[in-house]
Amino acid sequence: MTHNVAILGASGYTGAELVRLIATHPQLTIVGLSGNSKAGMAMADVFPHLRHLDLPRLTTIDEMSFDDVEIVFCGLPHATSQKVIAGLPEHVRVVDMSADFRLRDPADYEKWYGKAHAAPELQKTAVYGLTEFYRDQIKDARLVAGTGCNAATGQYALRPLIAAGVIDLDQIVMDLKAAVSGAGRALKENLLHAELSEGAHGYAVGGTHRHLGEFDQEFALVAGRPVNIQFTPHLIPANRGILATTYVQGDPQAIYETLVAAYAAEPFIEVLPMGQHPSIKHIRASNFCHIGVVADRVPGRAIVIAALDNLTKGSSGQALQNANLMLGLPETEGLMLAPVFP
Amino acid sequence: MTHNVAILGASGYTGAELVRLIATHPQLTIVGLSGNSKAGMAMADVFPHLRHLDLPRLTTIDEMSFDDVEIVFCGLPHATSQKVIAGLPEHVRVVDMSADFRLRDPADYEKWYGKAHAAPELQKTAVYGLTEFYRDQIKDARLVAGTGCNAATGQYALRPLIAAGVIDLDQIVMDLKAAVSGAGRALKENLLHAELSEGAHGYAVGGTHRHLGEFDQEFALVAGRPVNIQFTPHLIPANRGILATTYVQGDPQAIYETLVAAYAAEPFIEVLPMGQHPSIKHIRASNFCHIGVVADRVPGRAIVIAALDNLTKGSSGQALQNANLMLGLPETEGLMLAPVFP
Amino acid sequence: MTHNVAILGASGYTGAELVRLIATHPQLTIVGLSGNSKAGMAMADVFPHLRHLDLPRLTTIDEMSFDDVEIVFCGLPHATSQKVIAGLPEHVRVVDMSADFRLRDPADYEKWYGKAHAAPELQKTAVYGLTEFYRDQIKDARLVAGTGCNAATGQYALRPLIAAGVIDLDQIVMDLKAAVSGAGRALKENLLHAELSEGAHGYAVGGTHRHLGEFDQEFALVAGRPVNIQFTPHLIPANRGILATTYVQGDPQAIYETLVAAYAAEPFIEVLPMGQHPSIKHIRASNFCHIGVVADRVPGRAIVIAALDNLTKGSSGQALQNANLMLGLPETEGLMLAPVFP
Amino acid sequence: MTHNVAILGASGYTGAELVRLIATHPQLTIVGLSGNSKAGMAMADVFPHLRHLDLPRLTTIDEMSFDDVEIVFCGLPHATSQKVIAGLPEHVRVVDMSADFRLRDPADYEKWYGKAHAAPELQKTAVYGLTEFYRDQIKDARLVAGTGCNAATGQYALRPLIAAGVIDLDQIVMDLKAAVSGAGRALKENLLHAELSEGAHGYAVGGTHRHLGEFDQEFALVAGRPVNIQFTPHLIPANRGILATTYVQGDPQAIYETLVAAYAAEPFIEVLPMGQHPSIKHIRASNFCHIGVVADRVPGRAIVIAALDNLTKGSSGQALQNANLMLGLPETEGLMLAPVFP
Repeated sequence: MTHNVAILGASGYTGAELVRLIATHPQLTIVGLSGNSKAGMAMADVFPHLRHLDLPRLTTIDEMSFDDVEIVFCGLPHATSQKVIAGLPEHVRVVDMSADFRLRDPADYEKWYGKAHAAPELQKTAVYGLTEFYRDQIKDARLVAGTGCNAATGQYALRPLIAAGVIDLDQIVMDLKAAVSGAGRALKENLLHAELSEGAHGYAVGGTHRHLGEFDQEFALVAGRPVNIQFTPHLIPANRGILATTYVQGDPQAIYETLVAAYAAEPFIEVLPMGQHPSIKHIRASNFCHIGVVADRVPGRAIVIAALDNLTKGSSGQALQNANLMLGLPETEGLMLAPVFP
Repeated sequence: MTHNVAILGASGYTGAELVRLIATHPQLTIVGLSGNSKAGMAMADVFPHLRHLDLPRLTTIDEMSFDDVEIVFCGLPHATSQKVIAGLPEHVRVVDMSADFRLRDPADYEKWYGKAHAAPELQKTAVYGLTEFYRDQIKDARLVAGTGCNAATGQYALRPLIAAGVIDLDQIVMDLKAAVSGAGRALKENLLHAELSEGAHGYAVGGTHRHLGEFDQEFALVAGRPVNIQFTPHLIPANRGILATTYVQGDPQAIYETLVAAYAAEPFIEVLPMGQHPSIKHIRASNFCHIGVVADRVPGRAIVIAALDNLTKGSSGQALQNANLMLGLPETEGLMLAPVFP
Repeated sequence: MTHNVAILGASGYTGAELVRLIATHPQLTIVGLSGNSKAGMAMADVFPHLRHLDLPRLTTIDEMSFDDVEIVFCGLPHATSQKVIAGLPEHVRVVDMSADFRLRDPADYEKWYGKAHAAPELQKTAVYGLTEFYRDQIKDARLVAGTGCNAATGQYALRPLIAAGVIDLDQIVMDLKAAVSGAGRALKENLLHAELSEGAHGYAVGGTHRHLGEFDQEFALVAGRPVNIQFTPHLIPANRGILATTYVQGDPQAIYETLVAAYAAEPFIEVLPMGQHPSIKHIRASNFCHIGVVADRVPGRAIVIAALDNLTKGSSGQALQNANLMLGLPETEGLMLAPVFP
Repeated sequence: MTHNVAILGASGYTGAELVRLIATHPQLTIVGLSGNSKAGMAMADVFPHLRHLDLPRLTTIDEMSFDDVEIVFCGLPHATSQKVIAGLPEHVRVVDMSADFRLRDPADYEKWYGKAHAAPELQKTAVYGLTEFYRDQIKDARLVAGTGCNAATGQYALRPLIAAGVIDLDQIVMDLKAAVSGAGRALKENLLHAELSEGAHGYAVGGTHRHLGEFDQEFALVAGRPVNIQFTPHLIPANRGILATTYVQGDPQAIYETLVAAYAAEPFIEVLPMGQHPSIKHIRASNFCHIGVVADRVPGRAIVIAALDNLTKGSSGQALQNANLMLGLPETEGLMLAPVFP
């Protein structure tokens, strides 16, 4: 028996990535694909790499029937998602990949996204989708809010350390390097090949990136007090991948052991041997996250580096992992694809 | 029941690609991995992207036991392969990914590779591994000679056209663009990132590329007369993919229909609608080959463009497809992974 | 004494490239920069790499005074250029970098650009800007029409060969690889880094690229009869550079000697030793064009490969070279910058 | 009158970059080029991008006559440089681009480079080549020790701040992103295009990078006490450029003003307006260094980001700037080339 799923916003990168993953998932069937600006088109014309698949044609959301759909994956832009999800029939369970339901407190949403939340009641029912830390709630959730891709990477590096109290909460610096697909398929000058290739620069420097809202929310929850990390993302000339270099103060060995213990049973989180550290090249197009710990020459300080693929573990792979949980399927189903190298 | 396989030369790119593909193949088990210069190392240390897999440690070939091995994949360098394969026990069936057994006539081998063939008797038993055209022989072969990656791409574009007699055999120009992984993991100055990135240039210009030996052999066989195409490969700053732009003279519509008919039942060869043409971006990390036909403004001429991933359909994916045939498994097993985009 | 120049359309790549070149030109002073959509901005805000220069602020064209301007460089979009140039005061001499004045016959313009020419009288006065072949007319011209970047590359490879009658005019295939900056700073999905990086594909396949209008015009002029080449450009993941691989039929040695003789006295055209061929990496960010000739294995056929930087020799460098001629300055002034490698 | 110079190690990237710069320098003449492994070759065969220049053939160092040479630029590998420079005639002044004379204390050299210094007496005469801070000593020096490229970038960001006492010396984190040409033309697996492209990872993580020796030496000198920064470089898939993101604790406005004041008169150091920050894309192939300051959301903390081209301002451009000083020429001669964008 297979489960019927639909993908809203299937003409974006997270939508395409989800189709790629579901293509070899034995128990999910895609019965609906929406892409308002490209409604009426075949997916093969929007994404020629999916040409070999037998997929429904893109429709508008209004045209889509949800009668036989169990799970809706929602890859719509922020703000739009709230309205669309609020209008979905009750029987449909939702895995959202937008930012709309990540922040529990509507005031936080307004602070980081600049407008009032349009569906605060629905927000209350949403479960934060960082699978490894919200597994039980996700199983029974009607609405799972996929995390920010940067927010996921940083939390994998830091969350167990904050929980265990092995690092100084007031001296955390996260310097993140992000590939360009995290910015989506938007037509922006700075995303052009000619502008980005051979370049590298910070963005949202100074603590203005919206994923800080997630760090603040989650780290405060874990620590039981506010934790204001410094967070500076950079854009690098690559297509997929996030590398979060995290500077922390604490005993390196204790830090290492805390991470090893935290992720010992996790199928997708690989803690490297002490002293080794990851590359985005080694997790590309996969659902794996690699984490390394290195002691700094300054005593009592360590560098924790986490790497994952923003489109897979950072977004669509996470969404599929959560959907597996919601449907009672093996959590790793369809997700054990090895990284693509070189 | 699963089949035991071993990979010789597993520390190169084709070896790693094969491991990647077999990782999600339900009926193959990797029981041996050789890599002479890296013998003793764990695969995770040679290829950190395979860290999550439970794989045997790299050994020398001499240390490897073939007792329980059904299929050996051989990703060794040219010239070495002949000697190693000649020494394998008889019960082992071999899928070679080197150039050593591609040319039936030892004189051709000597012409293109500059030295006498060391195993001419074995050569007589080898089946040329272009699956779609040698399927029946491959099923029963003991030794399958994987094709050159460029040779595969060009044959997919031209072979049915030559067979059908719809193009002028004396006016064929193939301009090929190849990504860098086709050159392997060799330490050569021109393969350095600083040398290749932002560059593009021809190589083996003038008809000196060794894959021409395969074109000559196969096209003569199909045509029943010599066919000397012009073939100029170029190196482009990408990691995976081959785009073969083929200039032919003949009726474009007949050319298109010939290709459509030839590949109608093929699971991995996709002929695009008339007038469309492929990108290497759309077949990346997959076993698919996309082919497009466009009529030129000069009447009676057409451009046929074929794209595939040199490491997958051009090498390791082809090898696995052939192994599936040899083992009586579904030909597509483990190979339906969708291309990775972006 | 220096000459005052203005640049219209200075917020595009050809405008920026011209500023880069003029920055070290001892006899030109930039007194006006227009960029309608960015009027009022400092160049440092539009192009931070020009931050160290003392440049006028961007204005609209209407706000610009041409009283003291000798030469106007025009990097405006096609169609717009015609109208703007038609309205410039008579004393101003114009180096146009758009496509608007390249085709002498307004019927050709309409055929390739899809609309009637708006300034056919002005068109009659325009000189085609391929410096090496129109040097004398350019010196005295009021309006010089910069060539297409692909059209320049291809003509450097073929023009002397057609003139000398050493190749078969009915069997010319040009397969061109173009970097992305040739497409300008336009916000198009296919120009995004995530779409282009790791990709390669043809475009305007089948003889529909507009630069064919220039090839047809110029080659017919040189040959005294129509010459319909086959021309297929491809987009490759690089920022700058065009590599034109040209397949011709004729005696390779005669072809080589014809090119050597044609360019013996040219400061920017380098014919490589017989058998060698160029890379776009070796002419990057310079005004040089490298040309190589290799005999094919098929007797009587040769491959001629030309490489230049589309933004420099293919556009803004050419424009400056022409301006030097118009002003009676040394033709190479400001243009002897060595290519940037790696 | 021009000055004769020779370049030792001219077959590496820093050698080629120096030739590129000197090519348009009106007062320097290259009379000798050494490249031991490529002795006897023409530079055009080693570096085809320099084909248009009239350059001496590569020789061994032994074959080279220094009689008429005023300045020798030395781009030899570490350890080799000491021996070669020690053997140069006294009248020759030397601009070294290796690491051999950067560390004043031979014990520091041994600590960071793993062997005893072979020319400790010569070391005593060397002037550290960070032009903006050692200008007066450089003018009269016989031997100038070019800085590490990472060391230059980091010092431009931090040196004035340490000198002015506006930041906490015990809480400095420098996260650096380096393009690949900084590693030179060495044949290493991790520098292959297939390994590096689409990748990003740290290296020398934990404070083991040799340029830390320079930071420690210089910052202690400036501060009058030891300053042990944390320093983690990363390799990114680009050819040229270093971006140093520096996390400091202190008043952001004071930090900004300190940098503005320090570099107000410097021709190559551009401090961006408060809140803006640089990209390596905007200084590529130039001698400029861009520095930005952004206040963090955490009060009392700031991010200082510096960008320069490792081959130009970080190495060969710096060397030429120092040579200009030594020869009494304008410091900017030959170095005002605008950055290449895109």
